[in-house]
Amino acid sequence: MSLLETTIASITPQDQDARLAAKARLDQLIMPHWAMGKLMDLAMDLAGITRSAAPAVARRTVVTMAGDHGVVAEGVSAYPQEVTPQMVGGFVANMATINAMAKVTNTDVVVVDMGVAADLSELAKAGKILDRKVAPGTANMATGPAMTRQQAIQAIETGIAVANELADDVDIFGTGDMGIGNTTPSTAILAVLTDKNVADLTGHGTGIDDEQRDHKASVIEKAIATNAPDTSDPIDVLAKVGGFEIGGLAGLILGAAANHKPIVIDGFISTAGAMIAHAICPAVSEYLIAAHRSVEPGHRAMHERLGTDPLLDLNMRLGEGTGAALAMGLVEAAGRLLTDVATFDEAHVAEAQ
Amino acid sequence: MSLLETTIASITPQDQDARLAAKARLDQLIMPHWAMGKLMDLAMDLAGITRSAAPAVARRTVVTMAGDHGVVAEGVSAYPQEVTPQMVGGFVANMATINAMAKVTNTDVVVVDMGVAADLSELAKAGKILDRKVAPGTANMATGPAMTRQQAIQAIETGIAVANELADDVDIFGTGDMGIGNTTPSTAILAVLTDKNVADLTGHGTGIDDEQRDHKASVIEKAIATNAPDTSDPIDVLAKVGGFEIGGLAGLILGAAANHKPIVIDGFISTAGAMIAHAICPAVSEYLIAAHRSVEPGHRAMHERLGTDPLLDLNMRLGEGTGAALAMGLVEAAGRLLTDVATFDEAHVAEAQ
Repeated sequence: MSLLETTIASITPQDQDARLAAKARLDQLIMPHWAMGKLMDLAMDLAGITRSAAPAVARRTVVTMAGDHGVVAEGVSAYPQEVTPQMVGGFVANMATINAMAKVTNTDVVVVDMGVAADLSELAKAGKILDRKVAPGTANMATGPAMTRQQAIQAIETGIAVANELADDVDIFGTGDMGIGNTTPSTAILAVLTDKNVADLTGHGTGIDDEQRDHKASVIEKAIATNAPDTSDPIDVLAKVGGFEIGGLAGLILGAAANHKPIVIDGFISTAGAMIAHAICPAVSEYLIAAHRSVEPGHRAMHERLGTDPLLDLNMRLGEGTGAALAMGLVEAAGRLLTDVATFDEAHVAEAQ
Repeated sequence: MSLLETTIASITPQDQDARLAAKARLDQLIMPHWAMGKLMDLAMDLAGITRSAAPAVARRTVVTMAGDHGVVAEGVSAYPQEVTPQMVGGFVANMATINAMAKVTNTDVVVVDMGVAADLSELAKAGKILDRKVAPGTANMATGPAMTRQQAIQAIETGIAVANELADDVDIFGTGDMGIGNTTPSTAILAVLTDKNVADLTGHGTGIDDEQRDHKASVIEKAIATNAPDTSDPIDVLAKVGGFEIGGLAGLILGAAANHKPIVIDGFISTAGAMIAHAICPAVSEYLIAAHRSVEPGHRAMHERLGTDPLLDLNMRLGEGTGAALAMGLVEAAGRLLTDVATFDEAHVAEAQ
């Protein structure tokens, strides 16, 4: 079997015994019943995912995957393509927003070149990023497939391999992305997998105006019409209208789930990766923690499809893994409910001392 | 002038120069414009409050104030009054939810006895809590005023004094509460200050059923009718239908503002304290950061009155300062946007190296 096939075979539902053991303890904590609300629901998920009623949450890593997009030739983004490698440089230099947010929640950041259209080999040699470049940017999906089917599989399996490499040292994974133009393929993936109207799903991305947004929607419609992706085949969807970092994120998500690790999904692009992962293996949805609701209009439709309920809603639209890094604090909090808070019985014992 | 009067006189609006200096930097950060949304709005507030475009956020303290309520004699709570000192014991023993949440965000917790109906002097002597007891519990507000006017002023000035004592060592204050029965006075304060219908504002508190909630609403209505608080005099409102910890929190909030410190407001009871503070000195609202939206139905009406927009919405209803402690991570994140993230210019310089 291929790496993808063995990974899919390893993704089983959450463990119900661990969920129930966690619930039994949460029911007894010194607070009114379920008074920590969604964090208690999340604590049960952490138990079910990790197969432990005392889930580890101490070691947190956001994997930020970068790639470029040939479709920027159509003028879909406010920024030039060279910003992708410049921002990777910013991550490595600890100057970017993801670095600041990761510091808040004591989260590591691993940057992966999945397909940046620039030579980043010096950064890879210096051990500052992982070089997993499938190709230097996708082809222009407005005129043909973004990548070959083989490249799509390679991107996904690369993401799985990254998860497998890191899994022994990570309790909670998070996702992040960098890639100028990547709201365009993300919107295309969403439209294809949900059969919703492109115009309703298309947003302002990094800051284009209404007229440019209408143009972007027409480019997405053209890409879908040109490539006619097979809606029942998520790998075909990724190949026709996706991106290398999106495929890598899909793989990372599948790999995390196969390793029984929770994975915190960042914004619109990361959730497009989760859509691909979910279409490949629906059971993966039990491993997803939605970090936040982005201002991208399609993000709500993604969460509806995945059955995820975002933890934060702060009008963010940056990517990089910033929302995942911030949400790590809430995930840690959920875990600590199970490990750090006393039950009524335990507190009575303590008081008798 | 009294401590209360001098404090009110010290509460001036946010500094506009610092706000604009912060905005100028935020506008230039290496991200699409304002892509971190509400955290960037919050960063401007932090700058305006602290008078610095690089606001300090490293030293965070939640002050959790405890008090008891004579109105529990009316059967308004699911828990007996002895749970108040027991939970204070839990805080001190590091076994409670507030301790776990504070650990997540590296926040200190200071527990203050404002009026617990039990002898906590041993804990105070051991330096584990601050003994600022006004009286061992309020009187039953269903049959007369909860406290005297003098006690109300004492509670507020005690809170101010706590803020003044701690201010040199705290960058960001947070609030918390403990007091069986204290959603009842909090709802009464809200109803009196907004002239809204008590029945619409009354919730299930720690977990009473619908019938008990209707009873609780009728007790609140009776308390308001019996005492006829002067809606134009917040100290009279606090005295007639308030609580010692609520008065203490109102004072803490005023004191934090007078010291130009941001104060993160926890849940329903803390926000009732903020309502009193705001009624005494409307300018205090510029210093408030709403941590979260509780499931208590009246909480939304409080935020509307205060003009605050909660950072989190996680179906929580615990108090203790748990929401404030969690939100500290987001406040730190907002501060770090101003201090840790490079501008486009700075990043270019770095890349040229």
